[in-house]
Amino acid sequence: MKNNFFICLTFILFPMFSALCQERARDLGIEIGVMTPGTLNAINDVAGVKVGHTTLIKGDSVRTGTTAILPHSGNIFQEKVPAAVFVGNGFGKLAGSTQISELGLLETPVILTNTLSVPTAMNAVIDYTLSLESNEDVRSVNAVVGETNDGYLNDIRGRHLKEADVIAAIENASENNISEGNVGAGTGTIAFSYKGGIGTSSRKLPESLGGYTVGVLVQTNFGGVLQIDGMQVGEELGKFSFSRQLLNDVDGSCMIVVATDAPLDHRNLERLAKRAFMGLAKTGGIASNGSGDYVIAFSTAENMRIPYRIETNTLTQEVVPNDRVTPIFMAAIEATEEAIINSLFMAETMTGFEGRTVEKLPVEKVMEFIRN
Amino acid sequence: MKNNFFICLTFILFPMFSALCQERARDLGIEIGVMTPGTLNAINDVAGVKVGHTTLIKGDSVRTGTTAILPHSGNIFQEKVPAAVFVGNGFGKLAGSTQISELGLLETPVILTNTLSVPTAMNAVIDYTLSLESNEDVRSVNAVVGETNDGYLNDIRGRHLKEADVIAAIENASENNISEGNVGAGTGTIAFSYKGGIGTSSRKLPESLGGYTVGVLVQTNFGGVLQIDGMQVGEELGKFSFSRQLLNDVDGSCMIVVATDAPLDHRNLERLAKRAFMGLAKTGGIASNGSGDYVIAFSTAENMRIPYRIETNTLTQEVVPNDRVTPIFMAAIEATEEAIINSLFMAETMTGFEGRTVEKLPVEKVMEFIRN
Amino acid sequence: MKNNFFICLTFILFPMFSALCQERARDLGIEIGVMTPGTLNAINDVAGVKVGHTTLIKGDSVRTGTTAILPHSGNIFQEKVPAAVFVGNGFGKLAGSTQISELGLLETPVILTNTLSVPTAMNAVIDYTLSLESNEDVRSVNAVVGETNDGYLNDIRGRHLKEADVIAAIENASENNISEGNVGAGTGTIAFSYKGGIGTSSRKLPESLGGYTVGVLVQTNFGGVLQIDGMQVGEELGKFSFSRQLLNDVDGSCMIVVATDAPLDHRNLERLAKRAFMGLAKTGGIASNGSGDYVIAFSTAENMRIPYRIETNTLTQEVVPNDRVTPIFMAAIEATEEAIINSLFMAETMTGFEGRTVEKLPVEKVMEFIRN
Amino acid sequence: MKNNFFICLTFILFPMFSALCQERARDLGIEIGVMTPGTLNAINDVAGVKVGHTTLIKGDSVRTGTTAILPHSGNIFQEKVPAAVFVGNGFGKLAGSTQISELGLLETPVILTNTLSVPTAMNAVIDYTLSLESNEDVRSVNAVVGETNDGYLNDIRGRHLKEADVIAAIENASENNISEGNVGAGTGTIAFSYKGGIGTSSRKLPESLGGYTVGVLVQTNFGGVLQIDGMQVGEELGKFSFSRQLLNDVDGSCMIVVATDAPLDHRNLERLAKRAFMGLAKTGGIASNGSGDYVIAFSTAENMRIPYRIETNTLTQEVVPNDRVTPIFMAAIEATEEAIINSLFMAETMTGFEGRTVEKLPVEKVMEFIRN
Repeated sequence: MKNNFFICLTFILFPMFSALCQERARDLGIEIGVMTPGTLNAINDVAGVKVGHTTLIKGDSVRTGTTAILPHSGNIFQEKVPAAVFVGNGFGKLAGSTQISELGLLETPVILTNTLSVPTAMNAVIDYTLSLESNEDVRSVNAVVGETNDGYLNDIRGRHLKEADVIAAIENASENNISEGNVGAGTGTIAFSYKGGIGTSSRKLPESLGGYTVGVLVQTNFGGVLQIDGMQVGEELGKFSFSRQLLNDVDGSCMIVVATDAPLDHRNLERLAKRAFMGLAKTGGIASNGSGDYVIAFSTAENMRIPYRIETNTLTQEVVPNDRVTPIFMAAIEATEEAIINSLFMAETMTGFEGRTVEKLPVEKVMEFIRN
Repeated sequence: MKNNFFICLTFILFPMFSALCQERARDLGIEIGVMTPGTLNAINDVAGVKVGHTTLIKGDSVRTGTTAILPHSGNIFQEKVPAAVFVGNGFGKLAGSTQISELGLLETPVILTNTLSVPTAMNAVIDYTLSLESNEDVRSVNAVVGETNDGYLNDIRGRHLKEADVIAAIENASENNISEGNVGAGTGTIAFSYKGGIGTSSRKLPESLGGYTVGVLVQTNFGGVLQIDGMQVGEELGKFSFSRQLLNDVDGSCMIVVATDAPLDHRNLERLAKRAFMGLAKTGGIASNGSGDYVIAFSTAENMRIPYRIETNTLTQEVVPNDRVTPIFMAAIEATEEAIINSLFMAETMTGFEGRTVEKLPVEKVMEFIRN
Repeated sequence: MKNNFFICLTFILFPMFSALCQERARDLGIEIGVMTPGTLNAINDVAGVKVGHTTLIKGDSVRTGTTAILPHSGNIFQEKVPAAVFVGNGFGKLAGSTQISELGLLETPVILTNTLSVPTAMNAVIDYTLSLESNEDVRSVNAVVGETNDGYLNDIRGRHLKEADVIAAIENASENNISEGNVGAGTGTIAFSYKGGIGTSSRKLPESLGGYTVGVLVQTNFGGVLQIDGMQVGEELGKFSFSRQLLNDVDGSCMIVVATDAPLDHRNLERLAKRAFMGLAKTGGIASNGSGDYVIAFSTAENMRIPYRIETNTLTQEVVPNDRVTPIFMAAIEATEEAIINSLFMAETMTGFEGRTVEKLPVEKVMEFIRN
Repeated sequence: MKNNFFICLTFILFPMFSALCQERARDLGIEIGVMTPGTLNAINDVAGVKVGHTTLIKGDSVRTGTTAILPHSGNIFQEKVPAAVFVGNGFGKLAGSTQISELGLLETPVILTNTLSVPTAMNAVIDYTLSLESNEDVRSVNAVVGETNDGYLNDIRGRHLKEADVIAAIENASENNISEGNVGAGTGTIAFSYKGGIGTSSRKLPESLGGYTVGVLVQTNFGGVLQIDGMQVGEELGKFSFSRQLLNDVDGSCMIVVATDAPLDHRNLERLAKRAFMGLAKTGGIASNGSGDYVIAFSTAENMRIPYRIETNTLTQEVVPNDRVTPIFMAAIEATEEAIINSLFMAETMTGFEGRTVEKLPVEKVMEFIRN
């Protein structure tokens, strides 16, 4: 709240940059959970993880984009990472899930975008992977692409995202990028009837609990009865699913990406992914019929990397045993909850396709409610 | 809070009945969610569902019991009901789950008890089923028995539950039984470091959303960071998982049974079961490594019954389509959250095995916190 | 064997059409299983199912294509069909599987192609679906695209398949198309070290067992120890996985599509899909680590259609009960086995990428072995 | 075929021991698959694995028993082994499956018995585990008990198996026990309309493929169209499912236990388990609706043991990578197929409950057919 003030003041004159004056939940004093965030309070607190966005805001109708999450800076295909998927509700087009589940690993960046642009993003990931040095003989790429539907604010049928946009998100990815709100794959999304978007958060466990970091990034586009750190904001604002007792459209989706430096194997990553879904529940999400709620979890632990070509008969791994995973689970719940809330706090009112406008969360009103 | 006052006053003199003066969350003004409960605010609001308990409190060490949930009053084996299981965290001994998942149906009462008494309860369910009229030729029974571990307050290794206790719970089951707290399978359980137990709740949808009823019964025995209707009670009381940053025992389990009169098929019952797990998340549960968190969901809709012997080539069913299930999902989330909270409000302080005592939730302190 | 003789003689002069002189297993007297095939002995024996291929054979390097299977001739998005997926081994890029599993339905044609062309085919399916009359407001399409890797014979990295090729396969789909071998998605595939491709078969149950038809279409590209109607052909020919006790490349994949007119719900379609995998096992397939073995099963029964917009609160369905599904399961096993064998008998020797040649199954030698 | 002759001659006079003159498939020259069996051609070829049976044949009606498979000779609860379950068809009462799937490990012997005696066997496993030295504080035991239904030959409703019988099977388990046919849990079972029972087989990979051993033990009680090493024996004998085109009872079940010394983690053990199901398919099994077909796979590799109490933050494991698992998969397919066939060859004609008789496989007739 401190030095943001002048930034905000400045950008009142330049509303296109007004997102810069948004504040994250924790900056406003909302401390979700009982564990401590990492330095950035973002997925990139997990060392090596990079995030990149391409935001497409063009004319009256294009309000979409793409977000890339890279588990490390090397050639991911050559140095795969253990991974798992949990399907909260499978009304979605997540590409790559069955191979992750079978082989227990991720071999590309994770890309998020809009529903109808999944194939374009997949093509981009394939292009990117085939073109990397050392990948000359690669003939099979499991592109992992998630999506939510931004068709209310975005001309989604126009499929405006191009492969180059995805490549750009991958190539611009940075270890310090914590852009949130109306960026990348969150440009045109809606959550709890307010403007949603990208959000991120993290937790750093004390050494006594393993010392691991868990980071989460979300693309929010779903409904329910909003709770912020437990406070019944949705009810207070009178905006929640079935508030008018009509079978109206409550659908939407949430993509959740969980990264950790804990050396978890596939099985425990799958369990970790399931806990992120619990974090979604705590924000008031209801996983409605039409929601595509998926969690992709991966470990960046160096000793867990799976080389493309393995010359030895066995791989040596040092894994966290079952008995030690609970604090990591709890961290994922908390970081997911906070990431979702951050996506709301950081999003801005947006007008888009067919002149529709989605308001941002009325932060002042919310803060007043929370304080009282 | 009204006429309970005198009841409580009376039983201050008769502490063994003091549970009678406990009040459910809603009676204390805690209104979880935005939907309306059924008449009893209990699983038996789903017409035909019966609940029975056998509570075993003997001497210093026996603090256990069993709870039976019957989907209808007929011969369940002859008139099976569609059902599904969702495994939140599978550190548990739930019997019968693979057959429910394969055939999509339930053919016995659902029994809850303690971890080491599952086989005893299964034997009782088999006895019960084989002995029913018309079941003379039955040679295969899929007994469904869930459990949580009450070994802190109960001499669990003594396996004090007998088959007759389970039969009694089945035979005493009633459509009006909403006993909660230290009864049946909840006699010796612990939740959020306080005395847990049995809890129940329900939701009745308005006609515009289908008019269906969803009822939930839980056996709570798990940990995390307690939230009551969103309020951070666990933090306030300073009792929550990892509060001392130690890998201490946070384990425990939660069995959840969801009943509905909505004609849902197996697939949508499985989705419904998953939403109950979201309700658990909203109370602050974290599905720790050692937790056996299972949801069993079934439909009581008459047209969905599956006769043991089918004389026709096809069965005619009128099912709720995907597009209409979201309100039912939301009802399950709310009812599960409230059932868990009820189990805490209705439980009493208990002393048991090896002189250990588990305090009940300090309701007055909690209410003071919630009101401010 | 009869009138094919002159056709074959003719085409010895026109080798490019030589596939026409190939004979299906049953025409050569190989009667797999104990049940009776349908009229065409093909997936299109299931009334309404259409199949279309686009075969791309260009220059030295392009040996690929695409195959479209349509459950009915209407607007599939508006009249969805119940469906399920079974993952035999998930080293593959099957698009659309999680939504099929969640919603239990198929809303597009099923497309098969090569591994790196999945996104292109998805884009084509989206184009096709968005452009259909009545789909003007559609903003979400679950394109279902399976693949196997034809990169040994085909310049797969060149991604030569275009969206128009896929549209063509959909639009040319016919109820009588039983082209097999080196066509469509099977153009460049390899099975059991011989030329594989597309194969199909069906079974028609007697009225006493329900009278239903089950049809299967496969894209074969996998290895193991070939058995033809149980005969140990792989061993006899000295060509089988690990025959040289080397960790050589045994990988490959098999896409299997199962259609039936039996009114099976999602759960029983999933079970049916699993039985097709058993048919694969019977041909000597081993589901090697690198194999993408998937089964997609759907029902064409009219009463099981799921309209895009449902105006009623419930859907009435007449479903086959569990007790009646076994003959349908057995039909799927047999038809899958025979479809795979047909793909081998109908494929032709092919030379492709980098001058590599894959021989067709030495049918005469095989027949001699089988007869003795 | 050699020294068995005199044994058989001898026992013609002592028919109660006549099983001793049965010969295994391989002794009769039937060499299933292309890989080499281990020394015993049995599950105990996997070093440390022990098998014990209790066979109950009493009076006219009791024809049942139990079989125990121990992954090692130590305290299994204290030294758990990685494990996984694959559900081929879940019409069965397998106890313990969800915890195996969640935690990826086995902590008790695997017990097989009849359907209605599962709880009794569970109680025995709990007794056994609680009573072991060092287990004094154990309050949770995941008893793993599988079953098939022997109710045609056995008075299954009488539940004649006692806990002591199960304890005896565990305590008598030996590393050299390869009893097959009408023993233990296979005493009263039926396969392909002939007398089934217990069967076992193994494969030893050459060093170039890892040098691992895979052993399988089955309890056969299922139907279909019998194939022996590919030969259509069921058709030849005129005994197969739906041969009379009636919806007759084809149901039954198959429990399959797979052991390996390969250091496979849970995920790859689950994949291995799935391959065993392919072996079942190759014998002509169809996984009918009423069949309980389950596979339990575990690894005995020392470095994969999971201690009950772990004092370190991580466990070091040397695991077989995905790229090296295919030969192990193929070994499981072959060993399962041969184990099932062995169960048939080693079973004897039995008369039991209500005077019913089930004939043994007519081995001479079969051998004549196979040789021609």
